[in-house]
Amino acid sequence: MKKQTKAINARGRHLGGETPLVCTPLVGRTRERVLEEASRVIAQEPDMIAWRVDFFEQIGDAKAVIETAQKLRSLAGALPIIFTCRSVKEGGEPIAIGEDKVVDLYADVSASRLVDFIDFEMDNDPGHVRRVRESTRSNEVRLLLSYHNYSYTPGLEFLVQRFLEAERRGADVALVAVMPRDRMDVLTLLAATAQADEKTHIPLVSMSMGPLGSVTRMIGGLFGSGVSFGVGESASAPGQIPIGDLVTVHDIIRRAHGGEIF
Amino acid sequence: MKKQTKAINARGRHLGGETPLVCTPLVGRTRERVLEEASRVIAQEPDMIAWRVDFFEQIGDAKAVIETAQKLRSLAGALPIIFTCRSVKEGGEPIAIGEDKVVDLYADVSASRLVDFIDFEMDNDPGHVRRVRESTRSNEVRLLLSYHNYSYTPGLEFLVQRFLEAERRGADVALVAVMPRDRMDVLTLLAATAQADEKTHIPLVSMSMGPLGSVTRMIGGLFGSGVSFGVGESASAPGQIPIGDLVTVHDIIRRAHGGEIF
Repeated sequence: MKKQTKAINARGRHLGGETPLVCTPLVGRTRERVLEEASRVIAQEPDMIAWRVDFFEQIGDAKAVIETAQKLRSLAGALPIIFTCRSVKEGGEPIAIGEDKVVDLYADVSASRLVDFIDFEMDNDPGHVRRVRESTRSNEVRLLLSYHNYSYTPGLEFLVQRFLEAERRGADVALVAVMPRDRMDVLTLLAATAQADEKTHIPLVSMSMGPLGSVTRMIGGLFGSGVSFGVGESASAPGQIPIGDLVTVHDIIRRAHGGEIF
Repeated sequence: MKKQTKAINARGRHLGGETPLVCTPLVGRTRERVLEEASRVIAQEPDMIAWRVDFFEQIGDAKAVIETAQKLRSLAGALPIIFTCRSVKEGGEPIAIGEDKVVDLYADVSASRLVDFIDFEMDNDPGHVRRVRESTRSNEVRLLLSYHNYSYTPGLEFLVQRFLEAERRGADVALVAVMPRDRMDVLTLLAATAQADEKTHIPLVSMSMGPLGSVTRMIGGLFGSGVSFGVGESASAPGQIPIGDLVTVHDIIRRAHGGEIF
């Protein structure tokens, strides 16, 4: 199976395998809040955790970040962790440090090997993307290159190219998240994912955001998306639905396929 | 709301309204089996029932059909009933009577006013379609004109035209059911439904069949399909999933939309 050859084994979970992994974001502003949130969402049994460190007040203090990541790793056990400092221009929180310092932080966090994936925007400074690619690769951390558009859904060809461009820039995983203005945009995102899935050699992640796009979080796995973000305690992007609802729909889809494929 | 103006009120349920109606087929070969099946599936609370009379051994005996329809109406209470003699060339069972006799039967059943919808293939003899249109209209029964392709999924434009053609031939509801060969075909069916929904003045029903297409039975309502066929006891077409699973996914979608729209 083509999809299986693309899958990444992260602590025993297969990103890009037959069933999408359910990932839940952590958006706490302090170490205490992040860890409390982690305890509560892990009880809901997600497949992965994404720490949105742009919400973290001490982001400028690499030592505080690493210490929190250590505690988070203890809590998460065998759950893969995505470490994400989402840039303001792609929907993140305003932070006290510049992009160059984010690259330094990513290097430190990669070197700690406490996380499994690092998410960086593919449109960031090409030199920065290369540095993050180097620090992740030398520490066996996977690089997820992402593209977000909170305003609208670009056309099919453009979206397909975004996935291909992430691969060209060295991504281990490519992520595309866009906002629909109508229901045809929702189908465009799914079609672009399916087409890109045929052309790329890496796992893909995609979603159409907001209430209108929330259906893609439920069924995106059928069209080549390897991860679906679900709410444990707080959403990190519009249209995310509860972990339990995602798991329920994934189970129904699996049964409808005779249990053989997602 | 545009969708609300298109909706048909059938015994208090709105076909083409904000949430798709869950319809379950009856495929018994004898009166006893049809009525037993009806009792059991009605307990699962579908929104509608579709009696596939092409499975009924006494189809050639109009009196037996009407008597069974009478009992079925008693059991169904306020549930709308679709009366369907699916033709062999569109996936139905072989039957003992010709298309002209089916048209006669439809006239008798329409006159009885025991059912709410009659389903006839839009590609049947145009004179037959006109006769069924006349007998349904004069008895205030709704005409559902359908198109099935069990081999493949035609292109987007062709599918859009099928919905429009059903309306042109006098349908109150247009139904398109096609078989996907890959996941892009599934998106094509959904896109065609959404596009036709903007162009037509009648409610639409659509589905991509088989396991691959089963997701359209779950989410088709978002793209303009007003009915989803779910299994109460037996499936009448490939890819149908249990009533309970459909209701579960519909509820999750409704919550994801803030409860406001489907």
